[in-house]
Amino acid sequence: MTYTASSLTTDIAIIGAGPTALFAAFEARMLRLDCVLMDVLESVGGQCAALYPEKPIYDIPAHPSITGGDLITALEAQISPFDIPRLLGSRVSSLQGESGAFILKNDRGDTVHAKAVIIAAGAGAFGPNRPPLDGLETYEQSQAVQYYVKKRSDFSGKKVVIAGGGDSALDWALSLSDVADHIYLLHRRDRFRGAPETLAQVEAKVRNGKIEKVVPYQLHALHGEQGTLHHVEVATMKGENRHLEADALLPFYGLSTDLGPIAQWGIQTHRSTIPVHHATLETSIPGIFAIGDVASYPGKMKLILQGFSEAAMAMHAAHPIARPDTALRFEHSTSLGKPGTP
Amino acid sequence: MTYTASSLTTDIAIIGAGPTALFAAFEARMLRLDCVLMDVLESVGGQCAALYPEKPIYDIPAHPSITGGDLITALEAQISPFDIPRLLGSRVSSLQGESGAFILKNDRGDTVHAKAVIIAAGAGAFGPNRPPLDGLETYEQSQAVQYYVKKRSDFSGKKVVIAGGGDSALDWALSLSDVADHIYLLHRRDRFRGAPETLAQVEAKVRNGKIEKVVPYQLHALHGEQGTLHHVEVATMKGENRHLEADALLPFYGLSTDLGPIAQWGIQTHRSTIPVHHATLETSIPGIFAIGDVASYPGKMKLILQGFSEAAMAMHAAHPIARPDTALRFEHSTSLGKPGTP
Repeated sequence: MTYTASSLTTDIAIIGAGPTALFAAFEARMLRLDCVLMDVLESVGGQCAALYPEKPIYDIPAHPSITGGDLITALEAQISPFDIPRLLGSRVSSLQGESGAFILKNDRGDTVHAKAVIIAAGAGAFGPNRPPLDGLETYEQSQAVQYYVKKRSDFSGKKVVIAGGGDSALDWALSLSDVADHIYLLHRRDRFRGAPETLAQVEAKVRNGKIEKVVPYQLHALHGEQGTLHHVEVATMKGENRHLEADALLPFYGLSTDLGPIAQWGIQTHRSTIPVHHATLETSIPGIFAIGDVASYPGKMKLILQGFSEAAMAMHAAHPIARPDTALRFEHSTSLGKPGTP
Repeated sequence: MTYTASSLTTDIAIIGAGPTALFAAFEARMLRLDCVLMDVLESVGGQCAALYPEKPIYDIPAHPSITGGDLITALEAQISPFDIPRLLGSRVSSLQGESGAFILKNDRGDTVHAKAVIIAAGAGAFGPNRPPLDGLETYEQSQAVQYYVKKRSDFSGKKVVIAGGGDSALDWALSLSDVADHIYLLHRRDRFRGAPETLAQVEAKVRNGKIEKVVPYQLHALHGEQGTLHHVEVATMKGENRHLEADALLPFYGLSTDLGPIAQWGIQTHRSTIPVHHATLETSIPGIFAIGDVASYPGKMKLILQGFSEAAMAMHAAHPIARPDTALRFEHSTSLGKPGTP
């Protein structure tokens, strides 16, 4: 079946479908503005759903503990009274026009005409940070190097090098130590960053030999043939090298914050973020706003709860562009009544 | 039993105990700062708990619908892993000292020594807006004029004037029309502000004679003797007067935003709000921050969800004052681990 590209006219195009984007869509509809959600991922939720669906978040206000997945489910429920169109599974590749009349296209050829644009793209069309090693692509293709664990059983009986000093490295070292033959936990510093409880569990596994800490070492080279990994060579800052016998390497160096096509749209950027005005969240181009992790301004902390506030502020600032003839009277949701009622 | 005033030393004194204040306390403890909650009300929750415990709020992120009361319950659960001291039921009347060494006292004589202060006082020590009518106090004392409905049955068989154009007026007109003999719904404009569903219900009751709309009229005078109300005199802008036979008057003109003693502490104020720096939420006095409805800055909207973000930002800005020798490394709650663990 051939995909037929769609063409859609709306008030607000929202680029991204993570938690901040979903709440922006809610705010749009509470202000009776139409909107569309556009995301490269096949489903909504962004990093929350794709990278840590099972991980509890503790600082969502009035949710003492909620997993990334449940947060997205709750935000989906919040917008469920509204019928919000979604263009998922294709990256927004071009943005043209001006305030009041933007045209967006994605890689699949869908076209959106929007009066204002909200970029809630998180870390961009995110991908893992890849270590700068010769011949890396060959081992990526053979799955000897992986950045996400798709199936734990892939590592049964294997010798695995896990690289990184943060949560992901620690959590996967613990998890895979139950199935793997040997886990090397590689970090360029002596100390790992993680919850005290996690660190204690890792130390216990180090003591009983399930995990071997290799610190302070950095990745230096991969040795093997035709995509089959034999050794991972690591080195200290002083140039002391070690060869670790290994079948697989899992680098957990965080996500790249590559803005992708967004960087080509003429919007002022700064170190893979988009500087915005602190009151309106507007970017250097009038009518284009940025919220959530991708936005930067004094006091920005990349907290989901801060992104929610930005969503509300940006949507109020975008309202006059979408409705130039209608004054926006500030109302509390308690007065507006149940969402989705006429 | 005589009350023994307490004396307490802490990092952060939080004035207020509404949703923003409660979340500020959570943020303080997540940053491993000590704090105390101080509020004039006997229990936590501020306006949410005192004024609209049963009213659904629709724009708390990831809560499609939550009542004011349930919101407070959830925020209480979120801080429950921490043992946060509370000085409730007494107004903070004095604040002295300087950044790093503040002294607060409440009306009861409790003393708090704090390094930084977060004012999350909402609309201040809030009270109803009272109409400027001669002899009002007499009728307030006799309960012929009330600003909150304590018991619906007090109005059984009575003729009641409900004044105001917003939600509270409409909701109480509907509710009391089931027990009262007659409801006058008085508003200075022709149109009421309310949810479409509520407005439709009011119109239905107007048609069957349970509610009489008196528009566009304003309160002009109260007539009666010794606290017993006989007539409420109302007038149009053009000076046309009507006498409404009535036993009770319920004015719903919103809350006063009297800052109370806060206005005497030397902090710059503006129209009953406290201007703050947009990135730090700091007031004109170093070490004193303001968040939530009481704070003003460009883009401020008096949304609870915005107050949550301000709480996080202010607490991060206050950290260097409380811990001048410890650099604050930004961490996500997912990495910090379960609140309350060591």
